[in-house]
Amino acid sequence: MVSLRFSAGLRPLARAAVLAAGLLCAGLSVPALAQAVDPLPSWNAGATKTGILDFVKATTTPGGPDFVPPADRIATFDQDGTLWVEQPVYTEVAFAAARVRAMAQANPDLKTEEPFRTAISGDEKAREEALGKLSSADFMKIIMLTLESLTVEEFRAAVQDWMATARNPVLNRPHTDLVYQPMREVLELLRANGFRTYIVTGGGQDFVRAYSEKLYGIPPEQVVGTPDSVRFGYDASGRPVLRLEPAVLFEDVFGGKPEGIHLVIGKRPIAAFGNSTGDRQMLEYTKAGKGLRFAALVLHDDGKREFAYGPAQGLPYSEVGTFTQKLYDEAKARGWSVISMKDDWKKVFAFEP
Amino acid sequence: MVSLRFSAGLRPLARAAVLAAGLLCAGLSVPALAQAVDPLPSWNAGATKTGILDFVKATTTPGGPDFVPPADRIATFDQDGTLWVEQPVYTEVAFAAARVRAMAQANPDLKTEEPFRTAISGDEKAREEALGKLSSADFMKIIMLTLESLTVEEFRAAVQDWMATARNPVLNRPHTDLVYQPMREVLELLRANGFRTYIVTGGGQDFVRAYSEKLYGIPPEQVVGTPDSVRFGYDASGRPVLRLEPAVLFEDVFGGKPEGIHLVIGKRPIAAFGNSTGDRQMLEYTKAGKGLRFAALVLHDDGKREFAYGPAQGLPYSEVGTFTQKLYDEAKARGWSVISMKDDWKKVFAFEP
Repeated sequence: MVSLRFSAGLRPLARAAVLAAGLLCAGLSVPALAQAVDPLPSWNAGATKTGILDFVKATTTPGGPDFVPPADRIATFDQDGTLWVEQPVYTEVAFAAARVRAMAQANPDLKTEEPFRTAISGDEKAREEALGKLSSADFMKIIMLTLESLTVEEFRAAVQDWMATARNPVLNRPHTDLVYQPMREVLELLRANGFRTYIVTGGGQDFVRAYSEKLYGIPPEQVVGTPDSVRFGYDASGRPVLRLEPAVLFEDVFGGKPEGIHLVIGKRPIAAFGNSTGDRQMLEYTKAGKGLRFAALVLHDDGKREFAYGPAQGLPYSEVGTFTQKLYDEAKARGWSVISMKDDWKKVFAFEP
Repeated sequence: MVSLRFSAGLRPLARAAVLAAGLLCAGLSVPALAQAVDPLPSWNAGATKTGILDFVKATTTPGGPDFVPPADRIATFDQDGTLWVEQPVYTEVAFAAARVRAMAQANPDLKTEEPFRTAISGDEKAREEALGKLSSADFMKIIMLTLESLTVEEFRAAVQDWMATARNPVLNRPHTDLVYQPMREVLELLRANGFRTYIVTGGGQDFVRAYSEKLYGIPPEQVVGTPDSVRFGYDASGRPVLRLEPAVLFEDVFGGKPEGIHLVIGKRPIAAFGNSTGDRQMLEYTKAGKGLRFAALVLHDDGKREFAYGPAQGLPYSEVGTFTQKLYDEAKARGWSVISMKDDWKKVFAFEP
């Protein structure tokens, strides 16, 4: 930060320039210098949008009663269903299923053994819809099969290769197009105001890190996920390597989310966004801290532009990904925002006209 | 960062001010603006000091062959014996022993059962010297006994309370005075040059986080340690809390250090500092990355100002904390710097005249 001592001897214009540069540097400038520009253009006017803007203003106004120092401006975001599409199946499961299909060429037994059979059979759309109805335990079996013995660099490259061409077979778009544009704007608004944005996902930590910087502007060290077990060792040439093992250190869902946040960040977030029962404890933990806090759930109620599922919508989903009526009621009782995709979002995806 | 577009229309002085502010903001300014000031005043001139300064210059010179973008400027530091004193016993064991003594008032059986008896009996100096000779397994038993059922906030407060008055009984100084001043200067030099400095310690992650910001300027999210198991739950009033459990998720020593680095940071460091066999794999992993890397071991060869132990020094220590002759030979063979406390450090502690 620019010290007062440093700028005190300068002429007024220079002082103003230093001040502006300092504001830019602290990430305080986008709203300060450009109040006329709407930082959330893909959001419709309404209580949710106002709630987000008011929270950011209150926590970043120096001297205000709700001011939070930059070091403590931590915001956490679930990924699947909160930052990008999770239907008809989690993208990570689609990736793992593709690897199972490749493995089945050398190991045909996989073609008859469930849940691997589901990962192999049928056309793409039917297969992903069938995969989407499996249990979390089956997801884990498919994912674990594909982790064994790759180095962390090999795994990252495999994810990036696959992601370069893989598509969502229902929306018929590359997965990389299926980030919710309004949520990307929230990430950018928060970062422009000195927040650090973290992904806190039930998904594999190494999987999400492979593309988080590119898709969300979130670097690997700000991805808290279900951590694959990695083992230090040496390769044939004696070079030290980290290899993935078919196990996880813990599951970063439900109570595991606050536990993962404590492990990697060691601070309680002041804002958290989710969309399912798997995020409930993270939102509770966030809101239970002292001072002003913000919590929100994305409600998937837009069957035209995306998918409609959740309370009173039908389309049951895996036990983790459920937005139940009970969760909806808790949100209302605790003052969490419920983001209606249908009503709150002017645009869902960046590619929309 | 200050954009060129923003500063282009300003008068020269203002432009210079913006540029200087921008440099300050990027942490690039301390060497740039004050080349005449020695950033490592507690170091004697010599190959080690030159090696550190050359590495920082090479990795931060834009356009140079060894330039590393700020996002990848990750430096990791072991704590005990690398950043502060680890004799006669790890400070964390001294803290846990103090808690065992308090617990023994309600549970007198602890006074006869080893290793707890050692944590309780004798005067302070004899006790800490006896504790220092225990095995890692015994350290763990003593530490685990004291974790149970505290919330993470209660534990943090307990560490901070103890640290406010606890002293090293051999050096007769508060633990907080026993940070190596030359290493603090290295931390500050790196941060002033856009590095992020992480502690990667075999010590308890929650223990070290309680004071890392104050002692080293390192925030909780940049402490990778042996993570205590924490469990999400609700207290009697229904408030969500995280409680410590008497278990660890993994041990952050030996191969566990690269594994912990991958878990929390997800990037390979470009510089690493340690002092024992417990740091070997971290240094190997760091040096095995592409591009210019720096690795160093602190050699405790100054029995007058601190403690002399390690190769050919006698004073055996726990199996984790050993600087063996074999490690010394590996350091020399691999081009790791060996920091001689006796020869390289003008000052060991800030309180020295």
